[in-house]
Amino acid sequence: MSASRLLPLLSIAIRPLTITVEAVDETGETVRVPIPGEHPLTIYVDKREIVTLMTLGQSPEALVIGYLRNQRLVNSLDEIASVQVDWEVDAAAVWTRSGQLDSAEVEARLQKRTVTTGCGQGTVFGDLMAEIDQVRLPTEARLSEEALFAMLTGVRQYESVYKEAGAVHGCALIENTLPEPKILVYIEDVGRHNAVDAIAGRMWLEEISGDNTMFYTTGRLTSEMVIKAAQMGIPFLVSRSGITQMGWEVARQVGMTVIGRARGRHYQIFSGKERFVR
Amino acid sequence: MSASRLLPLLSIAIRPLTITVEAVDETGETVRVPIPGEHPLTIYVDKREIVTLMTLGQSPEALVIGYLRNQRLVNSLDEIASVQVDWEVDAAAVWTRSGQLDSAEVEARLQKRTVTTGCGQGTVFGDLMAEIDQVRLPTEARLSEEALFAMLTGVRQYESVYKEAGAVHGCALIENTLPEPKILVYIEDVGRHNAVDAIAGRMWLEEISGDNTMFYTTGRLTSEMVIKAAQMGIPFLVSRSGITQMGWEVARQVGMTVIGRARGRHYQIFSGKERFVR
Repeated sequence: MSASRLLPLLSIAIRPLTITVEAVDETGETVRVPIPGEHPLTIYVDKREIVTLMTLGQSPEALVIGYLRNQRLVNSLDEIASVQVDWEVDAAAVWTRSGQLDSAEVEARLQKRTVTTGCGQGTVFGDLMAEIDQVRLPTEARLSEEALFAMLTGVRQYESVYKEAGAVHGCALIENTLPEPKILVYIEDVGRHNAVDAIAGRMWLEEISGDNTMFYTTGRLTSEMVIKAAQMGIPFLVSRSGITQMGWEVARQVGMTVIGRARGRHYQIFSGKERFVR
Repeated sequence: MSASRLLPLLSIAIRPLTITVEAVDETGETVRVPIPGEHPLTIYVDKREIVTLMTLGQSPEALVIGYLRNQRLVNSLDEIASVQVDWEVDAAAVWTRSGQLDSAEVEARLQKRTVTTGCGQGTVFGDLMAEIDQVRLPTEARLSEEALFAMLTGVRQYESVYKEAGAVHGCALIENTLPEPKILVYIEDVGRHNAVDAIAGRMWLEEISGDNTMFYTTGRLTSEMVIKAAQMGIPFLVSRSGITQMGWEVARQVGMTVIGRARGRHYQIFSGKERFVR
């Protein structure tokens, strides 16, 4: 991290991650069940309302920054002066250093989102596909089976909300080092796309490049997950779940090593097997 | 169904639901793995581009109609003259009978979506919450444990893509009748919100009211799932998975009976237990 780096001013507005409610089970007994939080968070940039995200609230400032990054509403962290999350009003106030988002560009992007936001996908489809045509991931990177297994063991210890309350997805960014891959970030959220965005935010804040990392998700490998990992420059994408047709097609196009059904000592390499060392 | 009913002209453009790809597993063997289809489908209404959905393509015409319904872009099925899905160009061309969507209203809705589409939620948050304040579900409806168990047994037989390829969610609309609840619609899709929208489309096409039905989903009960079921007037919502805080709060507000963790003979009633008969 460079000494002269100008970081945005951030609130630290974490929410309680679970609440406990009463339910009646099949025996007729009232049981106390922990469930994950889910809260609306409306993002305002320079007072302009951008979007409402539904989030667990584990890392809202990173989520906001990563959302703006992945939607291409800001081009670098330097543009952001501050992110203040206030759960009293369920709002995140973002100020840019210029004091105004570039109007023409933002208008164009918001307009495009209007016509391309996919249901359950929640991002800019047309723009993403245009960008992805230019992405080529580093070919020299290698992932060993040993590192994969060590990583899978490691991430299990981080699934705190999932273990307690279920109903969330987890995503991790892991440094691809031996003998012990290092888990750099682990984020859980009610929407897996939020978890990815929050990690993108953390990568900017902590100046982490994707080159020597792998990305792990408990969620399915749909096109959008593969596209976002590619945009972050991450050559290895690992999931506990399966892959969809378009996730598979995009992975092959950008040259990403994608491993699905990764649990314990099982896995299936769907693309980029030449980077994997058994 | 009334004899004089004017139905829209629909294509029947189903996609192959799975493809088989090669993967390398932990033994180093190449295995053939079925994965679910995922395809972009761009909706045009009267030539105006509205949105791109990523879908399995099991029931695209119903998905398009249900999407327009749930986004409140059309107010009744009568307004739609035709829905023609063409997978050669990944497009659904919708024509309204008037030949033009009401411009001012649609502009307002699309504008609102611009600022409220949640990541991984993919719908109109502000509008939904305003509408939901007015929803009250029928209090006299009852669901018996017997019907719940019979329904859970029944839906398992429909999970065809999930059983073959995983990586999809299923949703069902079930008539709440004894001794044998009747599964009216079962839809699988890569996004569970698509599956819900497709069911909303089928309810319009087949004139099914929500009053005497229950809704089953394999996915989690987030706020949006509860909100959509409430908008469809369905008093019973059942999931194999858990519930989030806001899903729980909205269910209590609208008076919905929500049952989570429903597998085999297990379940947890999170709200509206007074409608459930053991």
